[in-house]
Amino acid sequence: MTYEFKGWAGYDEKAADGGLKYEAFEPKVFEEDDVDVKILYCGICGSDASVLAGEFGPIEAGRVAGHEIVGEVVRVGAQSGGLAVGDVVGIGAQTDSCLACEFCDAHKEQYCATPTLTFGSPYVRGKSAGTMCKGGFATTWRGPAHFAIKLPAGLDPAAAAPLFCGGVTVYTPLKRWGAGPGKRVGVLGIGGLGHMAIQIAKAMGADVTAISRGSGKEADARKLGASKYIATGADLAADFAPHARSLDLIISTINPPKVDVAAYLALLRPEGAFVLVGAVVEPITFHSFPLITGAVSVGGSNTGSPDEIRELLALVASHPEAAPWVQKWAFEDINKALPEFNKGAPRYRFVLANTENGAKL
Amino acid sequence: MTYEFKGWAGYDEKAADGGLKYEAFEPKVFEEDDVDVKILYCGICGSDASVLAGEFGPIEAGRVAGHEIVGEVVRVGAQSGGLAVGDVVGIGAQTDSCLACEFCDAHKEQYCATPTLTFGSPYVRGKSAGTMCKGGFATTWRGPAHFAIKLPAGLDPAAAAPLFCGGVTVYTPLKRWGAGPGKRVGVLGIGGLGHMAIQIAKAMGADVTAISRGSGKEADARKLGASKYIATGADLAADFAPHARSLDLIISTINPPKVDVAAYLALLRPEGAFVLVGAVVEPITFHSFPLITGAVSVGGSNTGSPDEIRELLALVASHPEAAPWVQKWAFEDINKALPEFNKGAPRYRFVLANTENGAKL
Repeated sequence: MTYEFKGWAGYDEKAADGGLKYEAFEPKVFEEDDVDVKILYCGICGSDASVLAGEFGPIEAGRVAGHEIVGEVVRVGAQSGGLAVGDVVGIGAQTDSCLACEFCDAHKEQYCATPTLTFGSPYVRGKSAGTMCKGGFATTWRGPAHFAIKLPAGLDPAAAAPLFCGGVTVYTPLKRWGAGPGKRVGVLGIGGLGHMAIQIAKAMGADVTAISRGSGKEADARKLGASKYIATGADLAADFAPHARSLDLIISTINPPKVDVAAYLALLRPEGAFVLVGAVVEPITFHSFPLITGAVSVGGSNTGSPDEIRELLALVASHPEAAPWVQKWAFEDINKALPEFNKGAPRYRFVLANTENGAKL
Repeated sequence: MTYEFKGWAGYDEKAADGGLKYEAFEPKVFEEDDVDVKILYCGICGSDASVLAGEFGPIEAGRVAGHEIVGEVVRVGAQSGGLAVGDVVGIGAQTDSCLACEFCDAHKEQYCATPTLTFGSPYVRGKSAGTMCKGGFATTWRGPAHFAIKLPAGLDPAAAAPLFCGGVTVYTPLKRWGAGPGKRVGVLGIGGLGHMAIQIAKAMGADVTAISRGSGKEADARKLGASKYIATGADLAADFAPHARSLDLIISTINPPKVDVAAYLALLRPEGAFVLVGAVVEPITFHSFPLITGAVSVGGSNTGSPDEIRELLALVASHPEAAPWVQKWAFEDINKALPEFNKGAPRYRFVLANTENGAKL
């Protein structure tokens, strides 16, 4: 089988709004622990847009983003970890790590001090160390089999794609803070991550409260699995007063310039946590006294490991109602999809589908 | 046996510096679930000084603070929970709660929405509801047996007193965040709470790093059980650079006007927590990005329950080296002890000893 390596490449900070160029690229050197994956689907995540807009720093010419990848294995090396040609696998936000440190050994690869991020950072080991990796807005992905995770039976591959970044990003803190039966979980913001957080928390057995501006998304939130909905307006303290001390955990998926964390802390039960997975530009500010008297925390969480992705895939495979709501775009229309994404149009995740590779629109 | 109710009462905000007046007071109505305790020892805690200085709000005339009490039971009611005259018991920062809510039912009385605080707040139930309680800078304590905890054998009663507030205040977060073998715990500040945090974390099996200004307290920190010491100066970021990602948990016992939380977050390993037990006046401010990439948290913790006090007493009884370092003052010298306390003189806890009641100086 022959296949090519071509992708939608960013060249300047306007790329986020649809200025990507379709072009061939040189993949990393194939090594015995690598696989080649013919890409079927790739989700569009907020951090792809941020990276292409230069918000995480200047990008090199030819940056290929995309990190919610699902595709078919077309080549394996001698140490490809049991993967076989024809397997359907996915790759998330992390493409590689040192595989030698205590965190990699503990199957917490996301904490490795030298991760390779799929939307573009250098490989840290092997013959291609130092060269930039290429992401999922492409025809083919090549990389370590360790980070290519086989889909379980019963999972629609297009709907599965967003689980590999957005999904595991909310699953990891939900698991870490004990979401399950008897736990009251708030999800702040109903977008790509938020809608998955509602679904996943519900699938884990938690009672879910969605928190969003106005009531426009209430019907969707309830369909996604929320039993309660708090519509916010101009005065959070007033909005939250009837719900004081009602939640064990809040997953904050929003990323406005500023978040009034103190207002959200009032929603937490003792020993509760407000956990940010969406970055906020301005510093977070709150008084220590309510933190101490309420015995609450403000935390952050950063994607998940291959093992955590596997757990999440199994959970969603056994809870079909928790599959992300995706809207498919033709792979070749990425420059139309990105501006729509940036307008907030997804309900709730855009996924590119490469029909030439066999994807279904 | 006859005994009187007399205490050292505060009347204005200068009281913290030693303007307390010794006078008789009317105790609460004795109820069948109460005990009377002849006070032998009472620790002096920072929050006593703060309360007497009006920092937590104006105080009523005749406020009796003191909430690290150890004494001998001299009267029991019919429902005094198995306590008997002659038992040596202690009372911490909490004197009562509703005993009916979900938190009280779950033995987490510190989270009851209507706690009665020993250094002065109103009773919430029974015949004395609405009247102010009286604390431990007194000859006798009267209150619910539920909050009077029997000392286990082998614990020196004077050294045990500080465990009832300062000790359990650091024990509770150490336990909640998993301090034990294999855990690297940082203790920020070596004062009343900090010195107990080092001892207790060490007794729990953790590896302890003490963090303090300069190196004046290094020798003490090591004697208390710290295996490492980080001396801080004017540039925290530089001081901490060699120790980046080295600690699982930091218990912050300091209460300066301002804390540079961001600098301390750099010390945390992934999933680590910076937990404040000392209040800080100015708002806490940090950027969300390191919180997310490091998967770390900033939390608070608020004293502990009677059950947690019992656990701590058992731990220290079985680890005699973890008994607090106390300096005794005669009960009648409280107005001399308070100004010394406010100068930072304790090494590391002042305890009042009432020799007329049988205490030993």
